[in-house]
Amino acid sequence: MLTLDKIYHAAYVLRGVARRTDMIPAPKLRPDSSIFLKSENLQTTGSFKLRGAYYKISQLSPEEKERGVIACSAGNHAQGVALGASKNGIRSIICLPASAPISKVEATKAYGAEVRLVEGVYDDAYEEALRLRDEKGYTFLHPFDDDDVIAGQGTIGLEIMDQLPDVEAVIVPIGGGGLISGVAAAIKSLNPAVAVYGVQAAGAPSMLEAIRQGKRGALRQVSTIADGIAVKEPGEHTFAYCQKYVDDIVTVTDDEISTAILTLMEQEKLVTEGAGAVSVAAALFRKLPIEGKKTCCLLSGGNIDVTILSRVIERGLVTSGRSCSLMVDLFDQPGQLRDVAGIVAQEGANIYAVHHERSAAGVKGCYLRLDLETKNFQHVEKIKSALQAAGYRVLDRA
Amino acid sequence: MLTLDKIYHAAYVLRGVARRTDMIPAPKLRPDSSIFLKSENLQTTGSFKLRGAYYKISQLSPEEKERGVIACSAGNHAQGVALGASKNGIRSIICLPASAPISKVEATKAYGAEVRLVEGVYDDAYEEALRLRDEKGYTFLHPFDDDDVIAGQGTIGLEIMDQLPDVEAVIVPIGGGGLISGVAAAIKSLNPAVAVYGVQAAGAPSMLEAIRQGKRGALRQVSTIADGIAVKEPGEHTFAYCQKYVDDIVTVTDDEISTAILTLMEQEKLVTEGAGAVSVAAALFRKLPIEGKKTCCLLSGGNIDVTILSRVIERGLVTSGRSCSLMVDLFDQPGQLRDVAGIVAQEGANIYAVHHERSAAGVKGCYLRLDLETKNFQHVEKIKSALQAAGYRVLDRA
Repeated sequence: MLTLDKIYHAAYVLRGVARRTDMIPAPKLRPDSSIFLKSENLQTTGSFKLRGAYYKISQLSPEEKERGVIACSAGNHAQGVALGASKNGIRSIICLPASAPISKVEATKAYGAEVRLVEGVYDDAYEEALRLRDEKGYTFLHPFDDDDVIAGQGTIGLEIMDQLPDVEAVIVPIGGGGLISGVAAAIKSLNPAVAVYGVQAAGAPSMLEAIRQGKRGALRQVSTIADGIAVKEPGEHTFAYCQKYVDDIVTVTDDEISTAILTLMEQEKLVTEGAGAVSVAAALFRKLPIEGKKTCCLLSGGNIDVTILSRVIERGLVTSGRSCSLMVDLFDQPGQLRDVAGIVAQEGANIYAVHHERSAAGVKGCYLRLDLETKNFQHVEKIKSALQAAGYRVLDRA
Repeated sequence: MLTLDKIYHAAYVLRGVARRTDMIPAPKLRPDSSIFLKSENLQTTGSFKLRGAYYKISQLSPEEKERGVIACSAGNHAQGVALGASKNGIRSIICLPASAPISKVEATKAYGAEVRLVEGVYDDAYEEALRLRDEKGYTFLHPFDDDDVIAGQGTIGLEIMDQLPDVEAVIVPIGGGGLISGVAAAIKSLNPAVAVYGVQAAGAPSMLEAIRQGKRGALRQVSTIADGIAVKEPGEHTFAYCQKYVDDIVTVTDDEISTAILTLMEQEKLVTEGAGAVSVAAALFRKLPIEGKKTCCLLSGGNIDVTILSRVIERGLVTSGRSCSLMVDLFDQPGQLRDVAGIVAQEGANIYAVHHERSAAGVKGCYLRLDLETKNFQHVEKIKSALQAAGYRVLDRA
């Protein structure tokens, strides 16, 4: 049973283990409401998962602890369980798909887990974990559909109410639903007037569908850059808690999530993963009625691969007009590259790549691709106009 | 006069204005010491500068306030003065070089300053600010060489001693020296046994040179990615305080700073600018005797342009073996690209760009450039060996 008592007990157990993460005002994010960020991306292990995993493990019987725990995860749950087990002084085995990024494998090992790399995808690793549970008697730790796990995540709700006692709305990411179940239970128990909203990725709206249908079901496939919340089927318990406690659920697209990640980096100096940024994406893109409201966006985690971060930045620069790629038709004769480069320089844009090639279309034709650092969309248009005024045909790159 | 009393007074004045930024444990940064991060990159305006600017402005006479303040800066000082003036209810004029990034111009305006864009470089903007001061009677706010400004920055020292009472070493960035003067004065006044170290960019070691020479002088030029501490000449006051309070000063290179920025993003989920990351660079690259010591690294700011951040990430991926660019000599005959792509796939690397071109060297020759996502240096070597074993000549890209 999930009770406020249990969540308070989890908070007691987690003292000295989980950090009381900072509540950071972010007035620039939306001038028409008062937004604060609960920074669980700065939690030990880089996500909130440590809370639920540690509390769950602390509540196992001595026999269960003796046998050790097993989990399957390619991400934050793995690190949470690994550190949670180490801090409880017990053994943990984590099954990971062999394709998992080396950084996650190393981090999981560094927190003290034994890692089993399983050929195949997540589902294969999951099967292997269940097989090992049956064969060796390990205790299997579910990532979200467990009242102790949910109570651990719920401690964030207590902290939010303590750090921001007059909060009016709280926005929380939903994957399997463990985080929002705990947070909403804590908040609604203390003050039912606070709105609790859930956000899912548009490519993985499993809880939203379940609420709409009135029953759980599995999505056939999920696809989103927010891999931490790419869950096909909500939990049984978490579905019931969401029905009971959550005011509304909305979705955000990958482009909206990318913009949120970039905005958090630029304006708030915080690195978040896709799942960690969906609450801010929902606020930025006005998916929820928070005008004039004191609002807490929960940043659930920051474990994003830097290569992906690099792509998010590049995409964000393009979608905000600070980077562009123009195709310019040239005639294949001397002096044209110099002319075009001169026009671009005069307009104050930096060229960071040039690709100049004869076209297949005709003997005399060739094209020039210019990758530019620009100031904004107006600046891009100004450069295009200047080139067109000089007689060049300019296309945005497809 | 800089006294502990004045710093305490500044802390009193700054309540409700400057955030008491979080002190974040970062045990992964160096396993052989206990590192904590004072996160002034999460301060309002994205850097510590608000503290000194606000306190300085609060101490002006009613006449001085009435006339308004003027400052010259391309960065954090501008935003600190702009918001500090707005919060004190007075007018501010900020001279910026016309080449300043549009994001900084907009941020400065958003905090309520009148921005004067001055043709030329920083020195031209500075001259214009002095001219306007003389012409209009504005009060000029020096970015660092001022006891009130220094006292404002010193409030960080008080917070460090409160948040980490048993700290043994504190590492602080040095540009003009205002930040470290205040922090060191506060800390040494409370506990002289705490070591206070300064860090400068190797391309702008002005305070280090002054301390070595025993007198101030101007560097002929400065060059570093840490633009926030690219200062040619230390202040008169700050030089004296550094002589009195600072235990040692070391330098870090641009590559070391880049690695620190990337490490802070990946491991700590924090965005820092170049100047903001030098304290961590000094810790990571073992420039200071902090083995076994409880150490606080001060992250002074996070205002880095995302295009630069993107370059830092790319460079960091290369220098840590997670990205590489290989040149492969091919004979210009069908099937070779397929063979090479097959070998790369078998070794588990992602190709993210390919450039295939006939070489100028001979009729039959051509070369292939492969840009790859790799796991580490061992992985890069393994791919090269596999290609060589198949008879290809492979070069690292120059």
